[in-house]
Amino acid sequence: MDKKNLIVGQSGGPTAVINSSLYGVVSEALSHPEEIGCVYGMINGIEGFLNGTVLDFQEALPGERLSYLKHTPGAYLGSCRYKLPESLEDPVYPRLFEKFKEMNIGYFFYIGGNDSMDTVSKLSRYAARIGSDIRVMGEPKTIDNDLVLTDHTPGFGSAARYVASTVREIIIDANVYEKKSVTIVEIMGRHAGWLTAASVLARKYTGDNPLLIYLPETAFDVEAFLQKVEAAFEKNCNVVVCVSEGIHDKNGTFICEYDNSVGTDSFGHKMLAGCGKYLENLVRSRLGVKARSVELNVSQRCSSSMLSATDQKEAVQAGAFGVLAALKGETGKMIAFQRETAADGSYSMTCSLEDVNDICNKEKAVPMEWITEDGSDVGPAFIAYASPLIQGTVQVPMGEDGLPAFVYRK
Amino acid sequence: MDKKNLIVGQSGGPTAVINSSLYGVVSEALSHPEEIGCVYGMINGIEGFLNGTVLDFQEALPGERLSYLKHTPGAYLGSCRYKLPESLEDPVYPRLFEKFKEMNIGYFFYIGGNDSMDTVSKLSRYAARIGSDIRVMGEPKTIDNDLVLTDHTPGFGSAARYVASTVREIIIDANVYEKKSVTIVEIMGRHAGWLTAASVLARKYTGDNPLLIYLPETAFDVEAFLQKVEAAFEKNCNVVVCVSEGIHDKNGTFICEYDNSVGTDSFGHKMLAGCGKYLENLVRSRLGVKARSVELNVSQRCSSSMLSATDQKEAVQAGAFGVLAALKGETGKMIAFQRETAADGSYSMTCSLEDVNDICNKEKAVPMEWITEDGSDVGPAFIAYASPLIQGTVQVPMGEDGLPAFVYRK
Repeated sequence: MDKKNLIVGQSGGPTAVINSSLYGVVSEALSHPEEIGCVYGMINGIEGFLNGTVLDFQEALPGERLSYLKHTPGAYLGSCRYKLPESLEDPVYPRLFEKFKEMNIGYFFYIGGNDSMDTVSKLSRYAARIGSDIRVMGEPKTIDNDLVLTDHTPGFGSAARYVASTVREIIIDANVYEKKSVTIVEIMGRHAGWLTAASVLARKYTGDNPLLIYLPETAFDVEAFLQKVEAAFEKNCNVVVCVSEGIHDKNGTFICEYDNSVGTDSFGHKMLAGCGKYLENLVRSRLGVKARSVELNVSQRCSSSMLSATDQKEAVQAGAFGVLAALKGETGKMIAFQRETAADGSYSMTCSLEDVNDICNKEKAVPMEWITEDGSDVGPAFIAYASPLIQGTVQVPMGEDGLPAFVYRK
Repeated sequence: MDKKNLIVGQSGGPTAVINSSLYGVVSEALSHPEEIGCVYGMINGIEGFLNGTVLDFQEALPGERLSYLKHTPGAYLGSCRYKLPESLEDPVYPRLFEKFKEMNIGYFFYIGGNDSMDTVSKLSRYAARIGSDIRVMGEPKTIDNDLVLTDHTPGFGSAARYVASTVREIIIDANVYEKKSVTIVEIMGRHAGWLTAASVLARKYTGDNPLLIYLPETAFDVEAFLQKVEAAFEKNCNVVVCVSEGIHDKNGTFICEYDNSVGTDSFGHKMLAGCGKYLENLVRSRLGVKARSVELNVSQRCSSSMLSATDQKEAVQAGAFGVLAALKGETGKMIAFQRETAADGSYSMTCSLEDVNDICNKEKAVPMEWITEDGSDVGPAFIAYASPLIQGTVQVPMGEDGLPAFVYRK
């Protein structure tokens, strides 16, 4: 194969380490100048690429600047939520491959979650159909940790560390007053409860807050919840409850949809409030105690303050591993993580390649046996699983303004 | 004066450095063993003290453990919102001073905001009335930065750094997609806009987000706001707006109260949503663009992740300064900060003593000349004021669990 160029894009929601994966791909690619020519980035994913917006990394982030990607949250290249058509007969495919040819692209990398793996699947299948030798690779990324065939995904460890440390501080805040109170913390994750489960890492000993944790893997029952809260007051007068945004009842109705009378605003438009707000009001009105809710919101996926060094290192590693695999001729693969636990319990991880067609459009839930039978807590198996992933502090350099120094696209 | 004991308490809402002030008081007091006997802490403020809950710092936090207070957020001693009766004839006063006598208290320290300074005022006035030689001192603390007669207050710098860095990361998150969007960030501060104003520190250059900043110092007009948002789209397709929770219209009605049809939940109880949620819905329905809101919530006052080293150092300094002043016979004073700006523009701070009666129950607003005329932004004078206060990173030690290692009361 003659010397070809590499192009990389980012897709879906951002994470704290999606740019670390990008760094891994770009730095590894630049270290193979005999095999790889230019290293391009597509701005705003495949959608932006179709509109012709690309950058050259050696111009955009020369020298040391490239390494700033490792602590810059968000998607440096911008993102999109564009889904390629199901039919490979669609004219968008020849259009894309014509553009690849124009730019002499031999390596296509896409960093994202299961929707992005769908893009990798379609492009690699189309390449096979037309006999193109372009190598199409997927780099995993999601705070939701819901990709199959991998032990975990880059982005989860840092988000989990953010959730655990923030919940621990919210517990401190809740403990300040002696008066009975309930704090509901609403955590991201509509279908899979991995990130909400990570709130258990804030617990310092059995019987410590958060006293209740509810994932979307089990059905949520409002009356059982209220009884659990009442019982929790025996352990602590300040009860902290962590709930996934996606908790739902046994009929599949989201708890946030219960909130029917948050109904309409003064313009007649439906107001939406999260399940945290709903449960706050429920607790206040039914139990007559002080209640508040905290929605952790977008900081879960864009905060650099609680970057996990393990997560960051693994994201870089996955990026580099993918480039080496593509150079060996691999295509249509996603880089996956295989956990190795030594006899002394210490954790290590190796990368593997998995067929992207077995990954895309699937979701991995928290195993039911890791959740307590009554669905109000997670057990020690989850703690053993998640704990190694949040280890290690990253020193984010500070700028002259006293705030974290990131890199931005011009 | 023979050797007396010192007691210190915390009151009102927590901050990231209220325990640094505590460290300053306790460590300075312990370094004067010839003049000060035991150093006690009252648990849950004056209310807890009345119920007899105290601890001895040499037992509770021996040796090195004491210094962990400097990075532990929240109120280590717990807090209260108890207001002493206006009339000094009330029987609570002799009851308190009887307890002081029992414990041989010669020095009473209270760390808090203007309500807490009211406690200091009353106790010092009562002491004067009965001829007690007990020295009553106030240590300032509030993320709201609204105390008079001081350049700024401990707690503000760290909260401002948290707001600035979090808003900068929210801006990164908002910029990920190309589609027009508005993000409303709701920031603490019901009456004074200092903390909301700190969001301007997230702005990297003129015309960068946050493009609009609204404080409670000026009247908020919904129609003018919508026009400003429309105009802001010319600068950036992703507009970030920072608003204080306390924004109100020219009649004094809070914008969050506009939300009348968030009305009642299914139990007939009034649902409350913040002004951020209200403006999110307003923008979506009136401008027809993607909108979301983020309430920064309690992390503003309890996050250790963005501790300002300057703020932390000054809090310790204020604590120690107060003890030295009390040893010299001062009473009824609050420790205040006087800014000194050198010819080269560099910042330094010295402590002074101010009569607590001139401080309690007053509020300091952001000067009107620091706010732009249309009330939609803050100017360079605020940036020059706030910038030195957020400087410096504190390395918070991590525990074996990979999370910040704090100290907790047994």
